[in-house]
Amino acid sequence: MSAEEEIREPQGENADSLTAAEIEAQHPADAAETIEGLDITDQVKFIKQLPVKDAAESIAEMEDHDQRALIQSLNTGLAARIVEQMSPDDATDLLEDLDDELRHALLNRVPEEERAELKTLLTFDPDTAGGVMNTEVVILDQDLSPDQGIGKIREEVEDKEIPYYAYLVDKKDRLTGVVSLRDILLAKHGIKLKDLVKTQSLVTVGYNVDKEEVAHLIAHYNLLALPVVDFGNRLLGVVTVDDVIDIIHEEASEDMQAMVGAGADETTDSPWLYSVRVRLPWLIINVLFSAVSAWVVHLFEGNIAEMAVLAVLMPVVANQAGNTGQQALAVMIRQLAMERFDRRRAWVAVLREIRIGLVNGLIISTLVFCAALFLTDKLALASVMGLALGVDMLLGAFAGASIPLLLKEMGRDPAQASSIFLTTITDSMGFFFLLGLAGLLLLA
Amino acid sequence: MSAEEEIREPQGENADSLTAAEIEAQHPADAAETIEGLDITDQVKFIKQLPVKDAAESIAEMEDHDQRALIQSLNTGLAARIVEQMSPDDATDLLEDLDDELRHALLNRVPEEERAELKTLLTFDPDTAGGVMNTEVVILDQDLSPDQGIGKIREEVEDKEIPYYAYLVDKKDRLTGVVSLRDILLAKHGIKLKDLVKTQSLVTVGYNVDKEEVAHLIAHYNLLALPVVDFGNRLLGVVTVDDVIDIIHEEASEDMQAMVGAGADETTDSPWLYSVRVRLPWLIINVLFSAVSAWVVHLFEGNIAEMAVLAVLMPVVANQAGNTGQQALAVMIRQLAMERFDRRRAWVAVLREIRIGLVNGLIISTLVFCAALFLTDKLALASVMGLALGVDMLLGAFAGASIPLLLKEMGRDPAQASSIFLTTITDSMGFFFLLGLAGLLLLA
Repeated sequence: MSAEEEIREPQGENADSLTAAEIEAQHPADAAETIEGLDITDQVKFIKQLPVKDAAESIAEMEDHDQRALIQSLNTGLAARIVEQMSPDDATDLLEDLDDELRHALLNRVPEEERAELKTLLTFDPDTAGGVMNTEVVILDQDLSPDQGIGKIREEVEDKEIPYYAYLVDKKDRLTGVVSLRDILLAKHGIKLKDLVKTQSLVTVGYNVDKEEVAHLIAHYNLLALPVVDFGNRLLGVVTVDDVIDIIHEEASEDMQAMVGAGADETTDSPWLYSVRVRLPWLIINVLFSAVSAWVVHLFEGNIAEMAVLAVLMPVVANQAGNTGQQALAVMIRQLAMERFDRRRAWVAVLREIRIGLVNGLIISTLVFCAALFLTDKLALASVMGLALGVDMLLGAFAGASIPLLLKEMGRDPAQASSIFLTTITDSMGFFFLLGLAGLLLLA
Repeated sequence: MSAEEEIREPQGENADSLTAAEIEAQHPADAAETIEGLDITDQVKFIKQLPVKDAAESIAEMEDHDQRALIQSLNTGLAARIVEQMSPDDATDLLEDLDDELRHALLNRVPEEERAELKTLLTFDPDTAGGVMNTEVVILDQDLSPDQGIGKIREEVEDKEIPYYAYLVDKKDRLTGVVSLRDILLAKHGIKLKDLVKTQSLVTVGYNVDKEEVAHLIAHYNLLALPVVDFGNRLLGVVTVDDVIDIIHEEASEDMQAMVGAGADETTDSPWLYSVRVRLPWLIINVLFSAVSAWVVHLFEGNIAEMAVLAVLMPVVANQAGNTGQQALAVMIRQLAMERFDRRRAWVAVLREIRIGLVNGLIISTLVFCAALFLTDKLALASVMGLALGVDMLLGAFAGASIPLLLKEMGRDPAQASSIFLTTITDSMGFFFLLGLAGLLLLA
């Protein structure tokens, strides 16, 4: 690709002739990839040679399972120093993945103050706002002047990750507003920080809000960071946009996997036995559901024995209606992932899919009717085929649009195994229409 | 959901009793949703009552087609004032969607300076870095001191969207580095801004780089903004993380739709005839491909006439192998969307899927063998079924993992219609295995 040539980014080195200095010179995100590409002995060798701060930054960017494997291979002393240098949210993510023994060993070697903070962070559910938040926040008394605010930020900013917003609190530490660094820099003299707050712009979440909801809010309001509060509205930390990008990407693409019964969190790097384990239950459900379709065919076995050509047409009906339904399904799941839907909009969307299914069903079944008539020269057979196909495609569109909504109403993930439910309906009903109509019209 | 209650966000009002003041009090992102929910006459009424700046901010947050419809309904004078108040990147997005006549009319009413900028932005391909970039950038001479830098930022910041990074240029306006506002605030006296630059952290893109690649880079390097340069390395603008969130979300979730032959950009709000048009070609391809499966069954029509129970088993094989393959497909597509894959890693991933398919195939086909034996009491039939199913599931896993890679090798979207290609293979080969083996072993 010629476009690739236009990207100027820090360059990695060939792993064979790699030195620690070269890793150190890379952006941490690239250094992480370089390290991931090495075998574990080399990983340990290079991490030992890197300054602890650089090692911590690079390890924080590594994939979860590579990160875990590397930390387990380091001696506890070095591992603890690396954990200490990580930002608290990254350190918490790492510690959560370790077994209890190693986690305790590392925590015990981390200085008192960091340990207390990490222990608090570890109490939050990793899938909630509390689990992904960052505690390095600039907090300012709302009664300071802008210049006092800037002075305070300059004092404190050294170990804060994102000083682009400052959070204002009252005397009781309750969050009263957020101001951007930009607003403080621009402020006129003689006012207080709290005068800078725009009330319409304070969006907060409780620590127990699901992280996907957090990601939605940040995306919806174009925030760089979203404050996380406890039940007393005291500020606990912030979730930053860079953490949310990964959540959004994962969430958006995991639906595709969930839809067909693969694990939402599977990647090509997941242990293969893990994938076997998460997919197998859905495959078993799928085979049980297929038994329903098989049973429908079984009901009409006599018809098939008389007219084997019906078995030729069966896969066309099933496959086509299944595909039509999956198109509706995919559009619906995506929409549900992107925004909250009220019931009225949901049914408007279902109606829309029915309309699309009706028109596409009419066109495709007319084509198939003509092809069947041309190939078999049997008007009745071609009519049965066209009719069964058209009706099943319409049903597929309706089922594909409705299944995610029903799953959601039932409090389940709208994507999970939805394609399996869908094809059970389109297969079994398609066979029922085709074989049933054939029984009525062709074999009566 | 109880979690929902923990989100404190600006509240919208019931549309019936809505006033312009209430819309004005909302966050622009919420105001946009409120406006979208009104019919077009009310939309125009409220937009006329809002301060132009607020109207511009809210309209910028609306969905493309709602935005276009609203602008078309306003009188040209007001529409031009709204466009003028938008940030240049939002204004460009809007203008791109309008027909030539209205675009020219609006541009002619925008003041000279903004018009020149918008015209330049409109020359960039909307799918590239140049098309999504923002031109409101803080640019500083690299030889300034930190305090001079802060002074300059304070002067300029009023109409810049994101002063969190400042970009340093040499005497020839070539980009030499980027420093964060944080770094400037923290800087010691007596140094120059260029001394603050960390060389490892300068990542830039050419204006013609694809926007998805831009999104990847921002996510990979955790950037708030990525500078866009021309061939002479002169700074043209920046792409900010908030624009990229939408690109990432769209890109990640559009694969699910592309996989089953729906339009990648379809939403439940797309005109339904548009959806008919984008899906129909793939449905036609699907029905042509189904004809292959039908033809395979047709080859064995004699076997089915003799043993109609084969038709009962056909859908089980096809559906199960199709589902197995789709699981591999989804995981593979997602991975290809998230990172660049070298050929070696790609084949490791295919091998992994083959292994998973083999184990799941063995387990499921053993179960099905037992069930078939129990239900029919025919060992040979149950064996044929188990064997055909197991082999087809293995083939499905291999095909599901390989198809995205092959599509990519061919320079195509790895997701596009991949599920259609897959089920053609699993259907036709599944019927071939089942009916062929039955012919050899049961009917010989």
